[in-house]
Amino acid sequence: MTEPPAVILLSGGLDSATALAIARDEGFRPHAISFRYGQRHQIELASAQRVASVMGVADHVVVDIDLRLFGGSALTADLVVPHHDLVEELDDGIPITYVPARNTIFLSFALAWAETLEASDIFIGVNALDYSGYPDCRPEYIEAYERMANLATRAGVEGRQQIRIHTPLIDLTKAQIIERGLALGVDYGLTYSCYDPDALGRPCATCDSCLLRSKGFAGVGIDDPALVPARL
Amino acid sequence: MTEPPAVILLSGGLDSATALAIARDEGFRPHAISFRYGQRHQIELASAQRVASVMGVADHVVVDIDLRLFGGSALTADLVVPHHDLVEELDDGIPITYVPARNTIFLSFALAWAETLEASDIFIGVNALDYSGYPDCRPEYIEAYERMANLATRAGVEGRQQIRIHTPLIDLTKAQIIERGLALGVDYGLTYSCYDPDALGRPCATCDSCLLRSKGFAGVGIDDPALVPARL
Repeated sequence: MTEPPAVILLSGGLDSATALAIARDEGFRPHAISFRYGQRHQIELASAQRVASVMGVADHVVVDIDLRLFGGSALTADLVVPHHDLVEELDDGIPITYVPARNTIFLSFALAWAETLEASDIFIGVNALDYSGYPDCRPEYIEAYERMANLATRAGVEGRQQIRIHTPLIDLTKAQIIERGLALGVDYGLTYSCYDPDALGRPCATCDSCLLRSKGFAGVGIDDPALVPARL
Repeated sequence: MTEPPAVILLSGGLDSATALAIARDEGFRPHAISFRYGQRHQIELASAQRVASVMGVADHVVVDIDLRLFGGSALTADLVVPHHDLVEELDDGIPITYVPARNTIFLSFALAWAETLEASDIFIGVNALDYSGYPDCRPEYIEAYERMANLATRAGVEGRQQIRIHTPLIDLTKAQIIERGLALGVDYGLTYSCYDPDALGRPCATCDSCLLRSKGFAGVGIDDPALVPARL
């Protein structure tokens, strides 16, 4: 029997690689989608390509969209990415690395692809625990998106299928995410999380994303394989 | 006092030009957004640029996104656009010109721009009466989108603003839309609606969009100014 298709948002980071492993483990045939959206660096896209290739996906599309048209974020405009020494110092509230409507745009492309693939299932590795406080990572947002998606689409209207937005990581700590991924064989050495690497592509270790990742590996009690010097 | 900004989805067609005129009439400063999405022809984009220029907008961005990546529609893939002799012959159900998740993608870019402009208002010229039966033109879809948008965004979460998706045409017939636009000074000779023009750019007169447009002008009892030979 053919496995049902699912669309997986794949950024090249730790969370989406884990979401991909979970989708596969749940018996879906993964179709990965990534975005060249005007982000500060292309390293995460190279990681997404490595992850897709090593973990095995039915196909992988990289969509070009230029969110620099709108700006408004330290990740897409000429603004400074904040750095901290400790994860406890992360700002309350929504940080400047929030990209306006990014997950809404990403999910909308995933929805278009799901419709043409006749897939009912979309996986997104959002997480509302060890996260940066982005509004579009919260469960109430995802529920509202799913409801909208079922009204937006041909299949939803014709009653042929219901779109489901899967968020398998949403209630997990970063350490729990890593443990889950390791159990499923994810090689986190392939993934990349830093918002603000140096000219050689080395993670800064002090942006929100690096700090959360580091907290996760510390919680599991292992070294981050992406930081082993031979991998850099 | 400065007029509040609003983002207007502008396709180059009759409906969105009317929505733009209404937004301006209601006291908004219009920021128009159009999409080069892999549609069959670029004439509608040239119309959007003419409409934006003649009607006066604060600015106009054209976003490049390639929905041909996914296909699934007669407007973005190598499928045949249906033609009919009479408007009464339009198919029941959702036709093959439906583009998967198109309005969801378009609204998501509009939402990103609204957030960076600190605009609360987005106008879309959808219409659920004289329309092609697309699921993403119905009021229940728009309401669900608006609800999702307010959970997606920084401003929504911080309680600073509520995103409103305005659909001033949703309950109007095509003739009523045209009457409203004429009263507001819209030059429909600038607009373009055909899905399937000939090599010279002349409207086919027999696709769903041409038939609905033609029914509208017949209802008002005037000739379509875009069909006056001198304009072609």
